[in-house]
Amino acid sequence: MAAEEDQLVTLDDVFEAQQVLADDSLTLRTPVLKHVQTFFTSVHQQNIDLYLKLENMQTMGSFKIRGVTNQMKKLVPKIASGQKLITISAGNYGKSFAFALKSRGIPGICIMPDSVPFSRVQLIRDLGVEVEQVPTIQLQSTVDRYVTEQGYLYCHPFNSTPCVAAYGSIALEILEDVPNPDIVLVPCGGGALTAGVAAAIKLSGQSQCRVYGVEPEQAASMFESFKAGHAVTLPTTKSVAAGLSPPYAGTITYNHCKHFTEGILLVTDEEIVKTVDALYRRGLVVEPSGAAAMAAMIYGKIPDVQNKKVVVLISGGNITPEEMNQLLPDFTKPK
Amino acid sequence: MAAEEDQLVTLDDVFEAQQVLADDSLTLRTPVLKHVQTFFTSVHQQNIDLYLKLENMQTMGSFKIRGVTNQMKKLVPKIASGQKLITISAGNYGKSFAFALKSRGIPGICIMPDSVPFSRVQLIRDLGVEVEQVPTIQLQSTVDRYVTEQGYLYCHPFNSTPCVAAYGSIALEILEDVPNPDIVLVPCGGGALTAGVAAAIKLSGQSQCRVYGVEPEQAASMFESFKAGHAVTLPTTKSVAAGLSPPYAGTITYNHCKHFTEGILLVTDEEIVKTVDALYRRGLVVEPSGAAAMAAMIYGKIPDVQNKKVVVLISGGNITPEEMNQLLPDFTKPK
Repeated sequence: MAAEEDQLVTLDDVFEAQQVLADDSLTLRTPVLKHVQTFFTSVHQQNIDLYLKLENMQTMGSFKIRGVTNQMKKLVPKIASGQKLITISAGNYGKSFAFALKSRGIPGICIMPDSVPFSRVQLIRDLGVEVEQVPTIQLQSTVDRYVTEQGYLYCHPFNSTPCVAAYGSIALEILEDVPNPDIVLVPCGGGALTAGVAAAIKLSGQSQCRVYGVEPEQAASMFESFKAGHAVTLPTTKSVAAGLSPPYAGTITYNHCKHFTEGILLVTDEEIVKTVDALYRRGLVVEPSGAAAMAAMIYGKIPDVQNKKVVVLISGGNITPEEMNQLLPDFTKPK
Repeated sequence: MAAEEDQLVTLDDVFEAQQVLADDSLTLRTPVLKHVQTFFTSVHQQNIDLYLKLENMQTMGSFKIRGVTNQMKKLVPKIASGQKLITISAGNYGKSFAFALKSRGIPGICIMPDSVPFSRVQLIRDLGVEVEQVPTIQLQSTVDRYVTEQGYLYCHPFNSTPCVAAYGSIALEILEDVPNPDIVLVPCGGGALTAGVAAAIKLSGQSQCRVYGVEPEQAASMFESFKAGHAVTLPTTKSVAAGLSPPYAGTITYNHCKHFTEGILLVTDEEIVKTVDALYRRGLVVEPSGAAAMAAMIYGKIPDVQNKKVVVLISGGNITPEEMNQLLPDFTKPK
């Protein structure tokens, strides 16, 4: 493992990222819904004081714009010299990547799995970024070819210290709105969001606060990495939460999650879908990946949670009405 | 006009209703999203401090449960003597009426226009309340027949002092969360919500706060009533905001709106639909009727609004993913 991959972000890195985001007109400070336990029966029954941090309201519909924006800032010299950017994404990161490139007039390309819905390809293309679709196993080799043969610069969608630091800004906002939380729950895919939030919480001196990442059972790369003691690649991952289903945990993100979180919790796809349904009924548009942490809350996956002040990160709302209708076909039945 | 229809609710009536709702396990205190102007470009540009009061999170998905609950409380003696209840509704009120009856084990019937989607009929039936569908022009005569021939008690869906007082509780919650607002915007259908919110704001001593009701142009019964100087019935009403399209303004609600609001503002159906879209993109499920006040905010209908602290009431989120998909067929196109 390279030495830089061993390094953990510092609180100064997070503050610096927060300033980068504050100076940028694209990224927004998102609100917190306070004391909303009464809207979710199983949460209310445990006498929890529940807060929802709404990154589904964020520009481009997810937290990803924070990471991309901080990455771009770090790349200013290389971008100025005319270097083009490339990334891999199944959706949310690519959308924010394309939006950030468009707003800066930078050329780039997004390599996407050929399994993603065409609407997502079109959306990124409409933002002016080229898309190339390839089978999942060729994603990395395609990027490598662009980097080697054409000098593209690879923006990793999650295994990136600037992303981890940027996502720490979410924790700083949480602590401003919810002083001294007992527990913070974060959806975990590649792990950068969990890594950044956990690091910023702990580095801010909130040692009493437990932070958990939440993964789908069928895409538990970080959970398996914790068991193995190092970042692992899974043979397959398949979850309704596509954004939480990269085939591997990042080395950088694993190191942060291992150091700063209390562990990784698992939820089933069925629990995730039911949680999307429950949130929709309460007026919130949340995609499956964005609902995973709330699923852990609703379905009793959190240790020692009674009477606690709990912040759940709702990480994204990128689901069209058409997709929502497909996900929740029996919605009209009352519950 | 009957003398009791001339009477305005008092602050004590509102406090009493607030206590009735607090004692009832069905109705919930809803949260406010604070300082969310940055999420809506046209609002941000006017340097407005924007707050959204989220009644779309309320039990049964709209503010109506507050009115029904207070009506039921007033009817306890009659219900105890075995009297059955009847109402007219195209949707939201009927849903809350049915839920309230079910939870109390009271028999009732809901008369619905034969134009409403079958899913709404089914939902009310599933809650245990009988539904009879008739052509719109026969709604009132059908109710009258049940009242006269079978002794049913008619719960008016909006022209009801207990409803007006109950909706005042929303204003009390707003004032707790947002001290001294400059402007409060309220969707206006039959007018009970606007009446109650405006009354409670003004009776609380917030004389500097302007309260506006917002109606669809094609269903402007309260707007036309203001012009006529009395509650009027329109020959036709037709709006995408079905919940704001009763054919007439109530006499009770008109009197309150006239006394306590600064006026009625109009929005087009197109503005309403675009606002539902904008809210969905920001992670909020809002039905057309629930989005009307926000449409007035986004589309510049509010006089003297720059630099003001504005609370927008999001009054309901009863729209299924299927209906949302039908309303926003071009959603995947980025904007």
